[in-house]
Amino acid sequence: MHISKVGILARPNTDGIEETLGNLIDFLQNRQLDIVCEFNTARLIPDYSLKTSPDHELGKHVDLVIVVGGDGSMLRAAKSAMKYDTPVIGINKGRLGFLTDIRPTEIETRLAQVLDGDYWIGERFFLQSHLTHDGNQIDCGLALNDVVLSPGRTPHMLEFEIFVDDSFMCSHRADGLITATPTGSTAYALSGGGPIIQPGVDALVVLPMFSHALTSRPIVIKGDSKIRIEFSANNETSGQISCNGNEVIMVPPGSTIDIQKYDKKMKLVHPNDYDYYETLRSKLYWGHKL
Amino acid sequence: MHISKVGILARPNTDGIEETLGNLIDFLQNRQLDIVCEFNTARLIPDYSLKTSPDHELGKHVDLVIVVGGDGSMLRAAKSAMKYDTPVIGINKGRLGFLTDIRPTEIETRLAQVLDGDYWIGERFFLQSHLTHDGNQIDCGLALNDVVLSPGRTPHMLEFEIFVDDSFMCSHRADGLITATPTGSTAYALSGGGPIIQPGVDALVVLPMFSHALTSRPIVIKGDSKIRIEFSANNETSGQISCNGNEVIMVPPGSTIDIQKYDKKMKLVHPNDYDYYETLRSKLYWGHKL
Amino acid sequence: MHISKVGILARPNTDGIEETLGNLIDFLQNRQLDIVCEFNTARLIPDYSLKTSPDHELGKHVDLVIVVGGDGSMLRAAKSAMKYDTPVIGINKGRLGFLTDIRPTEIETRLAQVLDGDYWIGERFFLQSHLTHDGNQIDCGLALNDVVLSPGRTPHMLEFEIFVDDSFMCSHRADGLITATPTGSTAYALSGGGPIIQPGVDALVVLPMFSHALTSRPIVIKGDSKIRIEFSANNETSGQISCNGNEVIMVPPGSTIDIQKYDKKMKLVHPNDYDYYETLRSKLYWGHKL
Amino acid sequence: MHISKVGILARPNTDGIEETLGNLIDFLQNRQLDIVCEFNTARLIPDYSLKTSPDHELGKHVDLVIVVGGDGSMLRAAKSAMKYDTPVIGINKGRLGFLTDIRPTEIETRLAQVLDGDYWIGERFFLQSHLTHDGNQIDCGLALNDVVLSPGRTPHMLEFEIFVDDSFMCSHRADGLITATPTGSTAYALSGGGPIIQPGVDALVVLPMFSHALTSRPIVIKGDSKIRIEFSANNETSGQISCNGNEVIMVPPGSTIDIQKYDKKMKLVHPNDYDYYETLRSKLYWGHKL
Repeated sequence: MHISKVGILARPNTDGIEETLGNLIDFLQNRQLDIVCEFNTARLIPDYSLKTSPDHELGKHVDLVIVVGGDGSMLRAAKSAMKYDTPVIGINKGRLGFLTDIRPTEIETRLAQVLDGDYWIGERFFLQSHLTHDGNQIDCGLALNDVVLSPGRTPHMLEFEIFVDDSFMCSHRADGLITATPTGSTAYALSGGGPIIQPGVDALVVLPMFSHALTSRPIVIKGDSKIRIEFSANNETSGQISCNGNEVIMVPPGSTIDIQKYDKKMKLVHPNDYDYYETLRSKLYWGHKL
Repeated sequence: MHISKVGILARPNTDGIEETLGNLIDFLQNRQLDIVCEFNTARLIPDYSLKTSPDHELGKHVDLVIVVGGDGSMLRAAKSAMKYDTPVIGINKGRLGFLTDIRPTEIETRLAQVLDGDYWIGERFFLQSHLTHDGNQIDCGLALNDVVLSPGRTPHMLEFEIFVDDSFMCSHRADGLITATPTGSTAYALSGGGPIIQPGVDALVVLPMFSHALTSRPIVIKGDSKIRIEFSANNETSGQISCNGNEVIMVPPGSTIDIQKYDKKMKLVHPNDYDYYETLRSKLYWGHKL
Repeated sequence: MHISKVGILARPNTDGIEETLGNLIDFLQNRQLDIVCEFNTARLIPDYSLKTSPDHELGKHVDLVIVVGGDGSMLRAAKSAMKYDTPVIGINKGRLGFLTDIRPTEIETRLAQVLDGDYWIGERFFLQSHLTHDGNQIDCGLALNDVVLSPGRTPHMLEFEIFVDDSFMCSHRADGLITATPTGSTAYALSGGGPIIQPGVDALVVLPMFSHALTSRPIVIKGDSKIRIEFSANNETSGQISCNGNEVIMVPPGSTIDIQKYDKKMKLVHPNDYDYYETLRSKLYWGHKL
Repeated sequence: MHISKVGILARPNTDGIEETLGNLIDFLQNRQLDIVCEFNTARLIPDYSLKTSPDHELGKHVDLVIVVGGDGSMLRAAKSAMKYDTPVIGINKGRLGFLTDIRPTEIETRLAQVLDGDYWIGERFFLQSHLTHDGNQIDCGLALNDVVLSPGRTPHMLEFEIFVDDSFMCSHRADGLITATPTGSTAYALSGGGPIIQPGVDALVVLPMFSHALTSRPIVIKGDSKIRIEFSANNETSGQISCNGNEVIMVPPGSTIDIQKYDKKMKLVHPNDYDYYETLRSKLYWGHKL
């Protein structure tokens, strides 16, 4: 990619975000790059007079979107950027950060590397899902990590059936169900006992939560599988579905949830020295070289 | 124990409950036993004119309380019976039934055995807990199985610290925390990956739910431990506490939950041929004799 | 495929194997099919005068190899058959049987279906591995399920490092390491806490056994990954490597094990009504339709 | 306890052991204490002329045994000390160290505290076991952590039945079985998925290894339970039993293993500021105060 114009999106309400943004913009302007700032991000740094854009158009006229924040901000930027096939890169201001490779102190070194052409691009896919009830469909939004069916109040047992590509897989009496992408396999699904899935594997993992059946296990299925959850009409209360933890939709008894891969992909830019396993080792305290 | 007077409590809205109740009462009347029926139970069988009692006094004037239902009904009966040191026995109309040993078809055989003196009594303890916030205390009720701290809506991370006998154990970033008795170890805690604890072991198990820390493990502590959960003031939303899944109390950020063993115990009557491991084997598909 | 010639391989020392073989051959001869019998299989049924073949050439001159036995026999047949791109199908005489779809009583129905052209073919890949020590290489054979590094005597801690495609993944202090194919994910790896991987997913799972690090998790990586295990020179005793549990090679301290996908694949024939999830449901007691 | 005479036992072949021993002895002699040195320990520090004792009598004539090493050395010292009801304390030279509280640098501070009377004593129990085959009994030794049944070579499935207090619990097809004390619950059993059991809980945990049954769970039973493992005559090879990983006895098909609590207990001395949970937090990376 040739980079002459960059978009910027930052997470508000974050310690030191103004300083990091200022450093970033000074650095980019020194390199004579055009900058477009997401509208709310621009308000964090009123002293700079930058072109602005609403977040859903931020990826439209730029060659790269730089996100300052955590995985949540990446998700917000990616939804727009992937529509226009624009790559994104992250500067980490959050706690974890499997997606945001660059620390605020590395702008002049590792971000510079990337702008010099020393990078590689990994693709990450999203899940889209919709709920069908009484003949009506509701779009549940896009999830980079996971789609989670849960009781939506005091944990209690839900009854549902799972179908994959129209084949019945199994029924569950469980607190819920996590359907996660490889990206999401190191997020909520991991807390629930799911396996880690390397980002390049074209697969999904389906994982019941607190299943009554002790033989339940996480199951890894093909990435282009179509998953259908039939939420039994016998459930006494509604459940709810959440995409990446932040869009929540009620699931009435008798409704159906369809989940499948979204057809566009996020292009995630990494410095060339990026090491997925190093991220695992440092975040999960895995064993270093003997 | 000498049994001349029995109390009866049944779960309403249960297939065939009237027939089982009728068979039970006929059987008991044939044996010349005095019968006291819990008030709502009596309404299920209006043709019998039995003495009635509110559930909280059912154990007061009888030698044995017979429960027809599942573990939930047992819990309801036990709360009253144990105040008066009255033993209880269960006839199973529910799905699982670790507490209810006798099938409806076994009234004339195994219940007869018990009334003939061929039984043993196992003690089960309860947890009591209360919530403290801003200097106010709320009693959270009694739990035979578990006390569960949970988010109370879409699963999300809570922050809290655990103290045992005033010693700091650890902090958690997790969806919640289960504190279970040995009786509860085969209920919700088991779905969450907890160990099975034989009823006679004087211990509690403390089990985080979906912990962010991959090194979290269930921990078994002494039965008379005093557990204190400090629900961090940093939590952005309230959590909730539920005792045995059915009494739910809001937990505002900054509140404290104290959990400990209740000083009275349920006296659970088993036919002499009762086999705890047989229950495990049949419910968990464990291996039978080779 | 057009089927005019079939090979047969059976597991010896199996209850009723002669009867099943007899029924199978009668059935095939009725259909005017040419039969070639693996040499030791032919000795089980001396009354039939069939052409014979050593097992490593059984797939050479036939259109389909029929295996009577369990997954072990399938493995033995497949090693030969896949060299010649010949498909295999299994009649189940073993306990489990994720690979052997047809029961002995279904020869005239479901095997007939297959011979009538009503089938589909799923590909299963193998792992090949070799051990390098002091400049010498030893071929460890082919594994359809898994390659397992273990202590080879009383369980004790081994030290080793794992590399994937020459990138260091992590080191382990553990009893061993399982590297499994999707086919193997429902075998030994499942007992060790690994996820189920649907056969069509192009992935491997790497799973430490009894790791000292509580943050160890199964990790699913791309199917064409090259895995290298460096067995630390600090280990006080040799370990051992086994492929599918039956070829065992000593692993001296300081040696290296390389594992990767074999370039030929087993073509596994299923009747058209084959249902992978039904197999899971029946073998793992998963929930049936509500 | 009044301490005027101390025994010392150290782990040989340990980096810096001579220096730590020297510091320890200087410190003890400054306090005018009588010292008895285990025979092999004395050879590590030939410049000191100390009274010596074989390890099995080290606890006989002293008021406290000080162990310099890891949990293995503690075990060796405790076997002798508990015969004479003599307490032990550990100075940690090993990697983990749930039993050895004092660092080599803390001799003048925390060990001094203990000698000044500022300590408490926790009791730890041992398991004894014996193997019966063809009417012959073999004593398997004492285990502070665990008794492990394993295949003794390439991992493979063993068949055995478990009885508790003569009641049949279940049968297993598994790689083996761990029976662990609370002390052992943070050792090998933890790697295998067992719960942590606080040292004061009077319980054992029984844990199958790589069980074929996905419904297998760790089970916590009363500390004074008598466990009997019947190692099926159907097993094609012998298994083996190991106590604390270092005494290994062959288990022929058809033999029986009996395991129960040993009647003497180790008296483990802790400085008064000892915190079991702090040990868990630091070793398992558990969450610190928020």
